[in-house]
Amino acid sequence: MNFREEQYLLLPGPTPVPTNVLRSMAKPMINHRGPEFKELIAEVTEGVKKVYKTKNEVVIFPAAGTGAMEAAVVNFISPGDKVLAVSIGVFGDRFAKIAEEFGAEVEKIDFPWGQAADPEVIRERIAQDRLREIKAVVVTHNETSTGVVNDIKSIREAVGDHPALFIVDAVSGLGAMNLETDKWNLDVVVSGSQKAFMIPPGLAFLAISPRALRVAKNCSNRRYYWDINSALKYLEKGQTPYTPALSLFYGLREALEMMEKEGIDNIIARHAVYRDMVRAGVKAMGLKLLADDRVASSSLTSVIAPEGLGANRIRRRLLERFNVVIAGGQQKLDDVIFRIGHLGNVLYLDLLAVLAALEMVLVELGVDIELGRGVTKAQEILMQKGV
Amino acid sequence: MNFREEQYLLLPGPTPVPTNVLRSMAKPMINHRGPEFKELIAEVTEGVKKVYKTKNEVVIFPAAGTGAMEAAVVNFISPGDKVLAVSIGVFGDRFAKIAEEFGAEVEKIDFPWGQAADPEVIRERIAQDRLREIKAVVVTHNETSTGVVNDIKSIREAVGDHPALFIVDAVSGLGAMNLETDKWNLDVVVSGSQKAFMIPPGLAFLAISPRALRVAKNCSNRRYYWDINSALKYLEKGQTPYTPALSLFYGLREALEMMEKEGIDNIIARHAVYRDMVRAGVKAMGLKLLADDRVASSSLTSVIAPEGLGANRIRRRLLERFNVVIAGGQQKLDDVIFRIGHLGNVLYLDLLAVLAALEMVLVELGVDIELGRGVTKAQEILMQKGV
Repeated sequence: MNFREEQYLLLPGPTPVPTNVLRSMAKPMINHRGPEFKELIAEVTEGVKKVYKTKNEVVIFPAAGTGAMEAAVVNFISPGDKVLAVSIGVFGDRFAKIAEEFGAEVEKIDFPWGQAADPEVIRERIAQDRLREIKAVVVTHNETSTGVVNDIKSIREAVGDHPALFIVDAVSGLGAMNLETDKWNLDVVVSGSQKAFMIPPGLAFLAISPRALRVAKNCSNRRYYWDINSALKYLEKGQTPYTPALSLFYGLREALEMMEKEGIDNIIARHAVYRDMVRAGVKAMGLKLLADDRVASSSLTSVIAPEGLGANRIRRRLLERFNVVIAGGQQKLDDVIFRIGHLGNVLYLDLLAVLAALEMVLVELGVDIELGRGVTKAQEILMQKGV
Repeated sequence: MNFREEQYLLLPGPTPVPTNVLRSMAKPMINHRGPEFKELIAEVTEGVKKVYKTKNEVVIFPAAGTGAMEAAVVNFISPGDKVLAVSIGVFGDRFAKIAEEFGAEVEKIDFPWGQAADPEVIRERIAQDRLREIKAVVVTHNETSTGVVNDIKSIREAVGDHPALFIVDAVSGLGAMNLETDKWNLDVVVSGSQKAFMIPPGLAFLAISPRALRVAKNCSNRRYYWDINSALKYLEKGQTPYTPALSLFYGLREALEMMEKEGIDNIIARHAVYRDMVRAGVKAMGLKLLADDRVASSSLTSVIAPEGLGANRIRRRLLERFNVVIAGGQQKLDDVIFRIGHLGNVLYLDLLAVLAALEMVLVELGVDIELGRGVTKAQEILMQKGV
């Protein structure tokens, strides 16, 4: 199975890059202070806004998604600011850690890994803040470490008219599950290139509400690289404050064209089918899922390894036998779960193939399952959905 | 002349990317926590060290070169630290500004734009610091805004055994002009991908001496994305703290192979010929150069536009007529100079062609020069050098 270059890459990012996008990136360099780039940055910024469902300003950084998380902290949270960080896993913790590192007084509300945040808990905590000392609420859209999606709309409603900025890490969720930046009144939304945008890692996005823009003007945190005031000033003239990652811009233009053609809501519906077929297939194999159906992510599915069989052994075998790459568990979930990414440039058939490989590997490892049951179940879901 | 995709791109970055490097970047994604990436990061880190002429640690960030400048500040300079910033242009000013933004007490020594820093001035200033309060000396190797190269070796010697960290911005100079990180005892050296490394923008490099590593352990500046302690911890296991810019890593591997084959000292010699032929050619056209021969950069050449003829008019015409892209002047040098980049993947013949185009454009714009004189002079230089 390993004779070809492409693997079955089913990670929650980096996701497989379509070959036309790869090709588009092989274009020669241009002057990043010239007319072609001016056109390019205007076009892709508008395209990204459509995915975000926003008319807010969008800034693109040459960085990993974590860079946009740092930008969301240093532009909008000043040292000493009280921040409510809602965490349901590794990336919620990371956001809280970055805020702490940059001087915020962080109060973290943790929910058990594998569960979603309860909006009622946040509503109560916000109601207690009569002096309105909380300056920002930081929350994860899709928690990549567990495969759980938070109900951002309800959490936003729970914060209500409290003046805290509402900051969302949507790195692995945007473009895979519905996120209404404007309708839901989200102040700052972070994302990255290597997930639903289907391009290689190296671009990070930030959508910024007018209210957040005002906060950034007076934010006292130190910043140069991540300074959105500078980025927006340059954006007006079709430039960036320092050299942009040109090849990734070429790729982004191509990928956005594909996304535009398919339509963002169709893309989201497609990802929901991924979720349903993978979950049904894995369940039919008799395996347990980490997340409940009600909060299950459309970007990835976390599966608990069968009793006595390490998750990483399954992963290794999938790689060796079938060149299938899936993710392991992180931190306390290491070797406990494996994570099947189904995000971006993935086909239904790819997922059927991976379910089939998983079945074969499990049988080989001595798990008592019936070959084909998981695959058949997933096929049935596809037939039901009429895809 | 504009029928083909590639321009004559003679900028001091982004520089033209070789087609084999572009092709190498069109590879599918891989798991950035898997065995292939572990091998890849080890290989390119070693390759970058050879260009740096160092055995020090090297860290690669998914960022523009400016990101590595910020990393050089937040890891090694604490708020309140006294910093001596040596500036000979826009990028020297930028480094000073970043240090200031992050709380350093910056004393800037400015030299006139177009000149190099005088090591004696720095020696005197350092000698006055009897209490050894200066924690870092920050200096530019090649100043991209003027086309002047600083004598880093002499400036380092001028600092002598003063304990200040010696931090160098070598973004546009490394790989084009000699820089001996270890022999010259440079503590932190910053560079970027889109210059002599011949790959697109989006990777930034930092070489760090053992002494600087110790300073970083106790540095009180806030940092997460740029934290080299975290980067080095992950590097040990063949990973990065957050998703690396994979495609650019593929490109870097390919480009480093090319550089290894040619040999770093041959590359440097080639760039010196670029400098000599362009300067001789431009002088033979009767134009004036901004920088003196003794301090002239091998990465780019700054040319003063003829009296009464704006530099940007010449640039526009070069673009329209011949698809030749050269850089303009920055800030107070805007419209006063134009800058011919000759860095990285450039051929001698490319530069002859551009000199020819420049002559034709100047004649068309009414400048009284003799067609062919500049080109011929440059040819003579090539013949003399035996290339």
